[in-house]
Amino acid sequence: MSGQQRELGPFGGIATFGGQLHRPDPAGADVAVVGVPYDSATTFRSGARFGPRAIRVASQALRSYNSALDVQPFEVLEVVDAGDVPVVPAYVEATQERITARVAQLLRAVGVVVALGGDHSVSLPLLRAQRLRRGPVALIHLDAHPDTWSDEFGMRYGHGTPFWHAAKEGLVDAAASIQIGMRGPTDAPDDLRRSRELGYHMVTGEEFWELGVEGTLARVHQVVRGPAYLSLDIDVADPAYAPGTGTPEVGGLTSRQLVTLVRGLAGLELVGMDLVEVAPPFDHGEITSLLAANLVYEFLSLLAKGSRP
Amino acid sequence: MSGQQRELGPFGGIATFGGQLHRPDPAGADVAVVGVPYDSATTFRSGARFGPRAIRVASQALRSYNSALDVQPFEVLEVVDAGDVPVVPAYVEATQERITARVAQLLRAVGVVVALGGDHSVSLPLLRAQRLRRGPVALIHLDAHPDTWSDEFGMRYGHGTPFWHAAKEGLVDAAASIQIGMRGPTDAPDDLRRSRELGYHMVTGEEFWELGVEGTLARVHQVVRGPAYLSLDIDVADPAYAPGTGTPEVGGLTSRQLVTLVRGLAGLELVGMDLVEVAPPFDHGEITSLLAANLVYEFLSLLAKGSRP
Amino acid sequence: MSGQQRELGPFGGIATFGGQLHRPDPAGADVAVVGVPYDSATTFRSGARFGPRAIRVASQALRSYNSALDVQPFEVLEVVDAGDVPVVPAYVEATQERITARVAQLLRAVGVVVALGGDHSVSLPLLRAQRLRRGPVALIHLDAHPDTWSDEFGMRYGHGTPFWHAAKEGLVDAAASIQIGMRGPTDAPDDLRRSRELGYHMVTGEEFWELGVEGTLARVHQVVRGPAYLSLDIDVADPAYAPGTGTPEVGGLTSRQLVTLVRGLAGLELVGMDLVEVAPPFDHGEITSLLAANLVYEFLSLLAKGSRP
Amino acid sequence: MSGQQRELGPFGGIATFGGQLHRPDPAGADVAVVGVPYDSATTFRSGARFGPRAIRVASQALRSYNSALDVQPFEVLEVVDAGDVPVVPAYVEATQERITARVAQLLRAVGVVVALGGDHSVSLPLLRAQRLRRGPVALIHLDAHPDTWSDEFGMRYGHGTPFWHAAKEGLVDAAASIQIGMRGPTDAPDDLRRSRELGYHMVTGEEFWELGVEGTLARVHQVVRGPAYLSLDIDVADPAYAPGTGTPEVGGLTSRQLVTLVRGLAGLELVGMDLVEVAPPFDHGEITSLLAANLVYEFLSLLAKGSRP
Amino acid sequence: MSGQQRELGPFGGIATFGGQLHRPDPAGADVAVVGVPYDSATTFRSGARFGPRAIRVASQALRSYNSALDVQPFEVLEVVDAGDVPVVPAYVEATQERITARVAQLLRAVGVVVALGGDHSVSLPLLRAQRLRRGPVALIHLDAHPDTWSDEFGMRYGHGTPFWHAAKEGLVDAAASIQIGMRGPTDAPDDLRRSRELGYHMVTGEEFWELGVEGTLARVHQVVRGPAYLSLDIDVADPAYAPGTGTPEVGGLTSRQLVTLVRGLAGLELVGMDLVEVAPPFDHGEITSLLAANLVYEFLSLLAKGSRP
Amino acid sequence: MSGQQRELGPFGGIATFGGQLHRPDPAGADVAVVGVPYDSATTFRSGARFGPRAIRVASQALRSYNSALDVQPFEVLEVVDAGDVPVVPAYVEATQERITARVAQLLRAVGVVVALGGDHSVSLPLLRAQRLRRGPVALIHLDAHPDTWSDEFGMRYGHGTPFWHAAKEGLVDAAASIQIGMRGPTDAPDDLRRSRELGYHMVTGEEFWELGVEGTLARVHQVVRGPAYLSLDIDVADPAYAPGTGTPEVGGLTSRQLVTLVRGLAGLELVGMDLVEVAPPFDHGEITSLLAANLVYEFLSLLAKGSRP
Repeated sequence: MSGQQRELGPFGGIATFGGQLHRPDPAGADVAVVGVPYDSATTFRSGARFGPRAIRVASQALRSYNSALDVQPFEVLEVVDAGDVPVVPAYVEATQERITARVAQLLRAVGVVVALGGDHSVSLPLLRAQRLRRGPVALIHLDAHPDTWSDEFGMRYGHGTPFWHAAKEGLVDAAASIQIGMRGPTDAPDDLRRSRELGYHMVTGEEFWELGVEGTLARVHQVVRGPAYLSLDIDVADPAYAPGTGTPEVGGLTSRQLVTLVRGLAGLELVGMDLVEVAPPFDHGEITSLLAANLVYEFLSLLAKGSRP
Repeated sequence: MSGQQRELGPFGGIATFGGQLHRPDPAGADVAVVGVPYDSATTFRSGARFGPRAIRVASQALRSYNSALDVQPFEVLEVVDAGDVPVVPAYVEATQERITARVAQLLRAVGVVVALGGDHSVSLPLLRAQRLRRGPVALIHLDAHPDTWSDEFGMRYGHGTPFWHAAKEGLVDAAASIQIGMRGPTDAPDDLRRSRELGYHMVTGEEFWELGVEGTLARVHQVVRGPAYLSLDIDVADPAYAPGTGTPEVGGLTSRQLVTLVRGLAGLELVGMDLVEVAPPFDHGEITSLLAANLVYEFLSLLAKGSRP
Repeated sequence: MSGQQRELGPFGGIATFGGQLHRPDPAGADVAVVGVPYDSATTFRSGARFGPRAIRVASQALRSYNSALDVQPFEVLEVVDAGDVPVVPAYVEATQERITARVAQLLRAVGVVVALGGDHSVSLPLLRAQRLRRGPVALIHLDAHPDTWSDEFGMRYGHGTPFWHAAKEGLVDAAASIQIGMRGPTDAPDDLRRSRELGYHMVTGEEFWELGVEGTLARVHQVVRGPAYLSLDIDVADPAYAPGTGTPEVGGLTSRQLVTLVRGLAGLELVGMDLVEVAPPFDHGEITSLLAANLVYEFLSLLAKGSRP
Repeated sequence: MSGQQRELGPFGGIATFGGQLHRPDPAGADVAVVGVPYDSATTFRSGARFGPRAIRVASQALRSYNSALDVQPFEVLEVVDAGDVPVVPAYVEATQERITARVAQLLRAVGVVVALGGDHSVSLPLLRAQRLRRGPVALIHLDAHPDTWSDEFGMRYGHGTPFWHAAKEGLVDAAASIQIGMRGPTDAPDDLRRSRELGYHMVTGEEFWELGVEGTLARVHQVVRGPAYLSLDIDVADPAYAPGTGTPEVGGLTSRQLVTLVRGLAGLELVGMDLVEVAPPFDHGEITSLLAANLVYEFLSLLAKGSRP
Repeated sequence: MSGQQRELGPFGGIATFGGQLHRPDPAGADVAVVGVPYDSATTFRSGARFGPRAIRVASQALRSYNSALDVQPFEVLEVVDAGDVPVVPAYVEATQERITARVAQLLRAVGVVVALGGDHSVSLPLLRAQRLRRGPVALIHLDAHPDTWSDEFGMRYGHGTPFWHAAKEGLVDAAASIQIGMRGPTDAPDDLRRSRELGYHMVTGEEFWELGVEGTLARVHQVVRGPAYLSLDIDVADPAYAPGTGTPEVGGLTSRQLVTLVRGLAGLELVGMDLVEVAPPFDHGEITSLLAANLVYEFLSLLAKGSRP
Repeated sequence: MSGQQRELGPFGGIATFGGQLHRPDPAGADVAVVGVPYDSATTFRSGARFGPRAIRVASQALRSYNSALDVQPFEVLEVVDAGDVPVVPAYVEATQERITARVAQLLRAVGVVVALGGDHSVSLPLLRAQRLRRGPVALIHLDAHPDTWSDEFGMRYGHGTPFWHAAKEGLVDAAASIQIGMRGPTDAPDDLRRSRELGYHMVTGEEFWELGVEGTLARVHQVVRGPAYLSLDIDVADPAYAPGTGTPEVGGLTSRQLVTLVRGLAGLELVGMDLVEVAPPFDHGEITSLLAANLVYEFLSLLAKGSRP
């Protein structure tokens, strides 16, 4: 957090992530935060194209010191805001190409890219960029939905398909990956089964409430090996905590549970993150984007404490 | 869930409950969902007349398969949307007559009617219709308030009086009935006592937080016998989970607890349900109506698994 | 307006357009209203996918008699609600094909189709369906923007391109067509010029405020010949009157001016209409969707008075 | 406006109307403002029961001096806030009795009562109270609707029936009365005709836009004779100016026109006023209640300048 | 709760706290509730100047009997609403003087003053008034932030500085005081340490979730001695429960936990309370102000049961 | 407008004003836009501290070409976003010093500074900075209020006092200055007179509606001489057009009138502008901030066409 930003207060200044410098070319920095304002692949409520902007605004309330983890992430790491990827609202495939190209470019310049969505379809091109840099990664996927449909509305890509394609394209090491929080009505009995057939481990929402945060983290640390990528769909939280999202599902996690889950990833080799599906038109009091900003902050804190490539 | 509805996505199509067929005459179906858009008997915030419409809209997000219960309710059961009961905003007694007449008619055509309120005054005429079909029922009543006042504002009927009259008119078997979740300030010390004098069992909000969901369900299964009717006032949930209601009370249940409570009714002979007091003008992000739609979905899932008459 | 609907009041019942029957196959009716819940081609605020549903809800407030025009449109004409076109959020071209196919099918069954958008990209496939039925039409286009860009974000189709393609594809008779209301900042000096190069007549927003409604209507009646199609983008209204839209522009028309403009089309041979760009997440008090519903109602009233094919 | 209120600023203090004293017994004052928080007779959107509270809150922004009329109404007149009439939400007839009784009591204590609704059904018992004090009055009725239906939903009283009964009960001198602003779809061709059959003069919304404010006022001064009562339904304004109302109609008046219309009543013998149908749950930025508070302020200013009994 | 207020229902009447009498001079009463509508010292979102009004409105939903504590606070105690302190928005020091003067005056008339904020800067002048009456007090401070900065933006007073100055000025007995709930990012590592250096005990947010309500209350009863003052910043609650506040922090308490915490103060000698940082423009469905009103109600109930000076 | 910004669409990218470069040191540019996020001097609704951010966000919808004026302001002029002035919420005088210092610094680097408020108190230090650069200026003041009180709440500075002090301090040449749009209740009969006593010309709101835009502009051009400064309080617009403001007044200007008024300043020597009192928490659909962004855009267009120093 720059001195200038602290001087201005969270209501002032140009809203970059955490008040960090806006540098389209982040060469030399440790972490680049990049927005992906795309929401055309969502199958229910659109609006996530405004997610990056809202998270940036909410992130003005972040401050220097993470007392729970005893670290000052913005002091330890040079974090920059690389701006947004140019997207094409009406064309998902052209958008994916631009995302992969831009993020691959960023990954040549910095060690870790944190992407702010956007709907969940953006995770596929983000993982394609990761593969170009590092090969397959272990996926830690927090979400109310498995997002392993093979297609949506009869077409190849939607916001419910990224992890089908990620497995099929070899972007992730499914056996070292885990999905957490799936709940609510699904289209068909095999929707959750399909994830397991692709090799992913899973802690469903029902299982989460039995295991608790600690038990779930134990499962994560059993499963995840090697470079790990966190994909966090804000709808893993209950609608009371994250109303501003496209496909809310009741019975979800609390903000306290989510913060604790992310902190519990300490010790893994974290190589990237996306925080998706914040849809500001359905938010109120900015509580969803504030939660999102804090979860990114916790992730950065882990990086600052050494859980990075 | 019809193939057409799935094809359209939750943002498309005519908003019937769950995308099911609109059939004013539901003869031959298993379950009829009917709206009761009446809110004039509410004593605080009006708006529940838009409850049926909002729940129908939110129900577009429901999908075919309930993975927690491993059942496809809309496949097992023929569920139809019978539309709304015609009400008379300014006249509660004329409205009650129309509700009883219409629902009695529906109960001659289908096995189970699920009513979407509207304020809680509608439960009295709904129970009158049940009695015409089945005689007295055991009541499972989830609510922040007992609704056993004998009158309101000096007049016979209000949204706080249905279960006084239901007991007095012999519509319910109070000794086999249970009220859950009562909390918050009341008018007088005897407000909760009155319920017990009428014969109802009760787990107050305070007791619920000590017993937990499991302990509460144990009490339900001890008490409830014979045909059981679920009356669920959405204000049993905490305002964080259900802001869109007429008489919110702090310190209420979470969405996870409510879903688990309803699922825990498995094994009872469920003959009817109403879901009342969703007041959309005070909702945001549709979280209250989404919770309501899901609770109805869980109830239908129980019916589909055999917990029905 | 059916007797049933009137009995229920505007707060009750299944929300079809104007409370008319939902008939996916409208054969034999005079007019079919169809929703096109597509918003992925919008270049600013998404949300118009909920336009059809919101307009249907607002249309419950319409009633039988148009006193200004002395006609009862729902009595004179059989109007049905044909439901929504299935769209594919992430794919604009697949969506266009489905729109054209479905509307062409409807146009084989009824004389006039009124489409509720959705963003303005849907007008292109709607006009393609019109051509299949009738050949080129004269376009009356009310909008804050000309929508005659040849491409957007480097791709062929967006919500700003329909009338470039419509002219190039010969769907409209540009010389008999008029655009009204264009104002606000544009990308480049030739944005308005391009419309004129394509042959369209234009009354810009600035000109409208000088000509007034009467002067503008005189221009319409000078220009428009033959079968005429009305494409009404709600952002032609000022944001005070229509905040719920994707690309609002200040300095627009009032609701009174818009109602009077539509009424002033009496005498033309009106063969179709679309009402697009209602984006409910940005509306409040439903004022935008109510305005939209009323403008459709005025159009239906003109048809009922004889201004139809 | 008391010194204390000015000292506190509009954000501070107990929200009585205009910061005036709360005196349930207003004996000796010139004007009593009374709230009538009843909304069960509304046929579309409920919420007007919160009208009195919202108007009181908005009225904190009123200040001492009306520069357009060069008068300080709260200095010239002793205005008190008499609180609210107790109503019975579920019973319209019991409510009417309480309104008439309470307002008749107030009219024995003060010269003029200004009532804040509440839905328009409250005007009937208000006029009954006026008759007890003064005999029939001339009615100046600003509204989007005539409210001269003989019944609603098959029952005697609704918010659309007050002026049928007022005429039939001899509460108003219809020949000396005028209705202004009626527009939008109605149930049947005779809806406006019925007003004229009852003897009321009318300037419809269409006529208003041709006559203008001045022409309309000329008609008012031609028609109105004797003690005059102003009934102002806020939906006479366009939804852009008054979104917070129960039955909005597009194409209505601007705030400037309304303020000018009320000021133009100078010279009449004004004996009472009601301001009804402010429904705060549908308002935003308090613009509807602020408009309402200002219209009452203009009315009080007329009284202060001598236009009173 | 007066009989009149109960007769009116929570939607009616002049909104004093709990419907109690407005008495600027509360001599002879037991408790005076006073509003402090000041928000200029807030460092993030302004709006708390409307806190007193919103809490008063929400308090209309309170009723006579606290069943959990078996007491009728408004019957046992004479509680009056003393109105608001006059503040000067642009001048924090002038405002502080007015607050101390007014509250000292009230404390000469009644035993206990409950202040409704306003931002947290108001607690300093409130504690100065307490000292004038009673000498130093033990502080029970519920908040997401320690508010022990020595200055903000380079100036002496802000909403983050009250308890630095309170300790330095000897207004509180820090060794008998406890702060509960601190969490979220802070400016620097010593932010929490500073509280401890000033002598305050602390249960951070992290510690709270480990100790639970019971464990935390045990700490309170170990620490607190003598006359105790409760300062409750509503942001101690999670944003899901209290979105309407100026500096929300994720991972906070639930409404149930907060109610139980306040009830657990039974047995202490409670001499005053403030409830601060309710910012209504960011609230929805009034859930934050309703929670605030209930927490004051629980505090009054403790007083009524004897936990008072 | 940079190519990058156009590529991203208005939903993407870091929200600087108009997508222009953020340069805290604007040396060499033509115009610097600077935010002044201060709202503690407002006497009614706070929230304007978020005005600069909201206007920047809305300004993403601006585009390159102003067709009405046939100019591309961002091509002709180098406009930069200089970020925000650091303010001290609780201290108005310290804030004023920082504003004057920062803007004086900017005025040494660029020809024209456009300031985005913030409440109207910021105009005083802005004019002090102007005087340091140019000596007294002619003021063109659009507002619902005269803002010529000598003090507020008994203290020197408030948002209603800037133009008293500006006249007294010799910052403006009152005889060459004009105030436009004053209306609504004021504290006392001499409130408008005081402006005239200070030497300002005035066109009240009432006079504006008689003169019209053209007549008003004629008055402006008669009065204004020499370097001219535009201070535009968004509450000059009607609440229907600008609900998001602190002290709304009914009966105000339309967006069309305001745009035309600003364009009508062509030919003057415009040396600076402020756009104040946009209070986003009370806005909806961003219509107020969009209007504000457009009015700044029109001003920049005038500069680009030569109306500058």
